[in-house]
Amino acid sequence: MTTGMDLIKDISVTSPSKIVMLVIDGLGGLPDPQTGRSELETARIPNLDALAASGICGLADPIAPGITPGSGPGHLALFGYDPVNSNIGRGVLEAVGIDVELQPGDVAARGNFCTIDGKGIITDRRAGRISTEKCAELCKLLDGISFNGVKIMVYPVREHRFVTVFRGEELSPELSESDPSRTGVAPESIRAKYPEAAGTANIVNQFIDEAKLRLAEHHPANMLLLRGFAKKPRFPTMQEIYKLNPLAIAVYPMYRGLARLVGMEVARTGTALEDEFQTLQDSFKIYDFFFLHVKWTDSAGEDGDFARKVKVLEQVDAALPGLTSLEPEVLVVTGDHSTPAVLKGHSWHAVPVLLCSKYCRTDTVKAFSESACVAGGLGRIQSADIMPLAMANALKLTKFGA
Amino acid sequence: MTTGMDLIKDISVTSPSKIVMLVIDGLGGLPDPQTGRSELETARIPNLDALAASGICGLADPIAPGITPGSGPGHLALFGYDPVNSNIGRGVLEAVGIDVELQPGDVAARGNFCTIDGKGIITDRRAGRISTEKCAELCKLLDGISFNGVKIMVYPVREHRFVTVFRGEELSPELSESDPSRTGVAPESIRAKYPEAAGTANIVNQFIDEAKLRLAEHHPANMLLLRGFAKKPRFPTMQEIYKLNPLAIAVYPMYRGLARLVGMEVARTGTALEDEFQTLQDSFKIYDFFFLHVKWTDSAGEDGDFARKVKVLEQVDAALPGLTSLEPEVLVVTGDHSTPAVLKGHSWHAVPVLLCSKYCRTDTVKAFSESACVAGGLGRIQSADIMPLAMANALKLTKFGA
Repeated sequence: MTTGMDLIKDISVTSPSKIVMLVIDGLGGLPDPQTGRSELETARIPNLDALAASGICGLADPIAPGITPGSGPGHLALFGYDPVNSNIGRGVLEAVGIDVELQPGDVAARGNFCTIDGKGIITDRRAGRISTEKCAELCKLLDGISFNGVKIMVYPVREHRFVTVFRGEELSPELSESDPSRTGVAPESIRAKYPEAAGTANIVNQFIDEAKLRLAEHHPANMLLLRGFAKKPRFPTMQEIYKLNPLAIAVYPMYRGLARLVGMEVARTGTALEDEFQTLQDSFKIYDFFFLHVKWTDSAGEDGDFARKVKVLEQVDAALPGLTSLEPEVLVVTGDHSTPAVLKGHSWHAVPVLLCSKYCRTDTVKAFSESACVAGGLGRIQSADIMPLAMANALKLTKFGA
Repeated sequence: MTTGMDLIKDISVTSPSKIVMLVIDGLGGLPDPQTGRSELETARIPNLDALAASGICGLADPIAPGITPGSGPGHLALFGYDPVNSNIGRGVLEAVGIDVELQPGDVAARGNFCTIDGKGIITDRRAGRISTEKCAELCKLLDGISFNGVKIMVYPVREHRFVTVFRGEELSPELSESDPSRTGVAPESIRAKYPEAAGTANIVNQFIDEAKLRLAEHHPANMLLLRGFAKKPRFPTMQEIYKLNPLAIAVYPMYRGLARLVGMEVARTGTALEDEFQTLQDSFKIYDFFFLHVKWTDSAGEDGDFARKVKVLEQVDAALPGLTSLEPEVLVVTGDHSTPAVLKGHSWHAVPVLLCSKYCRTDTVKAFSESACVAGGLGRIQSADIMPLAMANALKLTKFGA
């Protein structure tokens, strides 16, 4: 929570006006070396360009100049949270990423199945990347074990990766990791970082011993490694801070989970872009804030597929009239970070942002692109500034000080 | 006080160069829906445009993007203070707003005359909005009461509103309020928030009891409500931070009071724009920093009177040669916040700022307006950055670090 959030909490008010935040994941890009034009500059996006022309534009740094954000901090910044101090533990992020609903006292950890030899030495930290089906089968072997009233849930993720959740009284995530991050050594015992975590360390070690027995005959996945122990963070909710009634529309579990962590209700929706926009239309009357997440731009960027990212941008553009026809008082279009196809991954580049409202103070920008947004009236802002701007434009913030 | 202020204090030096900060209250605006042009873009302001062309321009956020500032924080930011952490208590702001000079130990509170029924229940928190004359008459009834060596001053403000100042030894403003903020209940007793405020709470309650007796026959103003207890904050003065000898030229008491709170001397001046510019000329040799406050742009904006705001801007422009002919080494023109006529009130929109000096590094901006300043060399800054920039351009800051 930022100092700014305390301030916002003091001055925010409820009103009938509606805010839509359309997050195009990995929106920002870099020029194709052949054409000199970025994904946004290559795509035919007449609707986004029209919004840029009627709204106010700028570039946003999700964390700070030069910092490449993961999806967690990238989205927390968009929701107005300090992305550095509100960091979410790895185990929790992995759990929400597969739609596991954590309870307040739960401790979650990331797990890998691995291979050990006869002496207990790790020979492969990823167990030869077993299939996801095999992973699910092994998780079933381990799921539901209990020690001293602590129940342990094990959920498959993908290939050798899984999530463990420890549920019981007075558990602590202040634990060392069992994964030594290299082969040629034995897995480490879990140690308590503070005396009050000793009971939890003991239980986790008992679980690891039991898992080793149950996995013994399942070479190459004959052992497991745990890391990233974490509890669900206690963020002030968006209801508390902004007095909003927010709905998240997202296909992928990670984003649904992130939205849940900040108190949003999560809509049932389909698996396609059109489903998401339809869900927005269907629920538009009931909520006053909508987080609409489009994943496929990021996936294409991660794959280094410039043309596919361009195509997804054009699909989003084509779907926009279904959104603008709802006439939300405030519409924000931005991304959680840049994912340039030429870099095949998230990057540090500032993200284009546009905001449309009756009171936005339109600038001279006529196209929605990285280079056009440089000259925008928002200038260069931090992503965490976007929510206060959206709230202000929706006339949902009163004056600070007399 | 910001971290930046500690730094400025270390590196500031006195020199003969002069800085003029012309604050056009509520300067920033929004386009008239008919013409698409803002107040600044509509006004004929050749002198301001010429300054913009010869100087460096930008846009300033008084507090942070999206935050609408009151006059207090808006001005504190312009004077270089952290506007969030330097907030001024309501009672003090109300007192300085009617030119009451507070002494260091004084506790000031806002007061309302109200109506109570025979059972002591509040039936009207504003006593039917009695006339300002009646208010003055009732304040005289209560002014000068003393308890245990604490003297109580009561000053009329407007209609049912007044200010009370408690003057004595070891008074504390850490008090609850007597105003329940609703009718149908009795006024609350003042309670000490901390044990050390118990003595003050006792005196305030004695005063309220005495006031109730004296007001008994003055229905509808037969009782009073107090809130916003505050002491004059102890800001480091502008002399301490900047080593300046600053003069404030302002017509309205609130701004004179704010200037006094940061250590400025306050000039005697008339009630018109021309008087203020004349006062600047008359005192130009004696001081090295001048805060010149123009109120009427804000008043016009608050009234939603676009044309009047345009006219005031043109009046300011016409008066400018009287200022520029003095050839101050640094001239800053900006506002404490935006007050777009279309919003009829303060707003969150960034405020145009221009700075002229021999060393300002002129940019390409040729007009003084919201849209032109987007492209300015200052970019988007915080209002609290303006004083360090003015000081630097006046060559009043030495190097930081070796």
